[in-house]
Amino acid sequence: MKFLHTGDWHIGKKLNGYDLFIEQAAVFQQILKLAEEEEVDAIVIAGDLYDRSVPSVEAVELFNQMMYQLNIEKGYPILAISGNHDSSTRLETGGPWFEQTQFHLHTRLDQAFKPVEMDGVQFFLLPYFEPYQARAYFQNEEIKTIEEAMNYVVAEMKTLFKKEYQQVLVAHFFVAGSEKSESETTVTVGGLDAVPITLLKDFDYVALGHLHHKNALNEENARYSGSLLKYSLSERNQEKGLWVVEVKQGAVDYQFHSVTPFRDVVLIENSFSELMSPSFYEGINRENYISISLTDRGVIPNVMNQLRSIYPRIIGLERTYGRENQQAQKKSVAAVQKLNPEELIGQYFIETTGEPLSEKQESWLKESLVDLEKEE
Amino acid sequence: MKFLHTGDWHIGKKLNGYDLFIEQAAVFQQILKLAEEEEVDAIVIAGDLYDRSVPSVEAVELFNQMMYQLNIEKGYPILAISGNHDSSTRLETGGPWFEQTQFHLHTRLDQAFKPVEMDGVQFFLLPYFEPYQARAYFQNEEIKTIEEAMNYVVAEMKTLFKKEYQQVLVAHFFVAGSEKSESETTVTVGGLDAVPITLLKDFDYVALGHLHHKNALNEENARYSGSLLKYSLSERNQEKGLWVVEVKQGAVDYQFHSVTPFRDVVLIENSFSELMSPSFYEGINRENYISISLTDRGVIPNVMNQLRSIYPRIIGLERTYGRENQQAQKKSVAAVQKLNPEELIGQYFIETTGEPLSEKQESWLKESLVDLEKEE
Repeated sequence: MKFLHTGDWHIGKKLNGYDLFIEQAAVFQQILKLAEEEEVDAIVIAGDLYDRSVPSVEAVELFNQMMYQLNIEKGYPILAISGNHDSSTRLETGGPWFEQTQFHLHTRLDQAFKPVEMDGVQFFLLPYFEPYQARAYFQNEEIKTIEEAMNYVVAEMKTLFKKEYQQVLVAHFFVAGSEKSESETTVTVGGLDAVPITLLKDFDYVALGHLHHKNALNEENARYSGSLLKYSLSERNQEKGLWVVEVKQGAVDYQFHSVTPFRDVVLIENSFSELMSPSFYEGINRENYISISLTDRGVIPNVMNQLRSIYPRIIGLERTYGRENQQAQKKSVAAVQKLNPEELIGQYFIETTGEPLSEKQESWLKESLVDLEKEE
Repeated sequence: MKFLHTGDWHIGKKLNGYDLFIEQAAVFQQILKLAEEEEVDAIVIAGDLYDRSVPSVEAVELFNQMMYQLNIEKGYPILAISGNHDSSTRLETGGPWFEQTQFHLHTRLDQAFKPVEMDGVQFFLLPYFEPYQARAYFQNEEIKTIEEAMNYVVAEMKTLFKKEYQQVLVAHFFVAGSEKSESETTVTVGGLDAVPITLLKDFDYVALGHLHHKNALNEENARYSGSLLKYSLSERNQEKGLWVVEVKQGAVDYQFHSVTPFRDVVLIENSFSELMSPSFYEGINRENYISISLTDRGVIPNVMNQLRSIYPRIIGLERTYGRENQQAQKKSVAAVQKLNPEELIGQYFIETTGEPLSEKQESWLKESLVDLEKEE
């Protein structure tokens, strides 16, 4: 049994106001190609199919086309779940009909206990759920966290394990020990949402969604697919793609296949004059989604419009020294409170301009402070 | 070929803020029962399945359940179109999968020209469309109105007519000569949206949706199903239900079957004291959606809250004389401009209070006007 493990498609996602439909449609074509080349038996999509619970009409249109092409035109079975970004009820529309062509889209907790059997593998499709839903399903008011819920979920799944089959879990949650990046929505504050990896040890493979970095978790039997595209600047250095997973008797092989985005997400750090000079910008792909970090310190009039005339897709603009100072500012408030007025102003000047006061400025400051004290 | 002709379900519709889910679910059970009793071969739903282009999660849930029950559990073929209240793209979700179980839901103009053949009948499912869509489909910039578009639509359909079949058109528009009621959204102002009945003469039956009154059109071969429930006060006296249509060689039989709403929409005209008296309200069904017309003329403190303590679902409150006067007020402005100040005030008093000035009031008015003239 060989399948593609993907997830976090976030169809309809905007990157700083820019629609990503073209990028999403383009990467989907790479998925189709990979599925054909690898001759996979199914496509696993581990949640967050849409970016919003009420996706736009354009997002619905694109997603419908994708599913039609994958499942009806190409005939791939699909094993999918809803994620925290999806509205489970809205996504459920069509579900009972989809199953007729092996498009299994599970959106309710009770469906997690109806494993889909395919080529010697039991696929448990566990949609994203909240503790209150587990309380209702298990009729147990003690369940307060996802971890507590997962004890019951896994126990019930195990009663359904068939000896001659291997077991794959498809889920959308945060596994304890994995690393988050910026664009994932925090499901619950305070770590209550984390599932310990030990709970998942009896599955031959756990196809995870939720975290956008494919290396967010390093486990033998559990992996995040990562998102389909870079959905925030913090993901700019992450390799995006899909896992090709093969479940064989007694072993699971997986291999990552990267995809090439139609437009990439990049950070450029440079001075304004360099950025505006053809010798610089003609050497880079200006069509990308670009976040700019300006190394300049002086005032630049109409800076955004000037940059936009060269770079059509700016998703962020900051000053390099500002960023450095933001980190410096994390010093304790207590330390600042100990400073005398002269030291305080001197430090404020450094943090604002990136440079210390000149000797002349320092003497002006001293004089002013003396005058001020006299007046008091 | 025997089918139910229904339409204008408006799932998710609120009546003055009240959800109608219970009413809609209850009337749906009557549809199921009728379908079984009449042993119909299919269910035709002529548009406006939802009340809004982005229906609520609850509306989506109810509608999904209905379709599941009709088509998968009971096995009825469904022949449905999107109406002007539906988002055609959102409604399209699942469409290609639905067809596998004879659930035909057409949402795009091009689908109107792929008739569904069933038991000797060709069903042309024409979704609600706008002239711009017809311009694009026929690549003809001359098409400005629905009537103009329908000339092309019908001509193209006729090329697909098979001699040995009979033809049924399912459509959602305003047919010239039919009568509108309050709760239908006017599609286009100025009559540009009307389709002449003569254009539809070659169909054996035209199953229409859009107007909420089953008798809105009186034609041999074309009928409105009317809405599933009374969706505005103006529909309070309309009989609601479905047509059972039988298409036989050379003849079409249709018979109306009424449904009984779980809660009715009614208008009660009475005095406040009568309305609050048990001898009155114990004799009526207070659970209905009630619009109240008060015959009183005096001030009644806290009137709405007092009435609500007896009638839980008030959808409107007005004064009877106010309604009468609204009609009286339609007199021409010109006539009012000719009145002298005394007449003008006298008439205003009548329109506001419903009573003429008393003799005493009239003499006070005269004195005041004389005083006023003196001051000037």
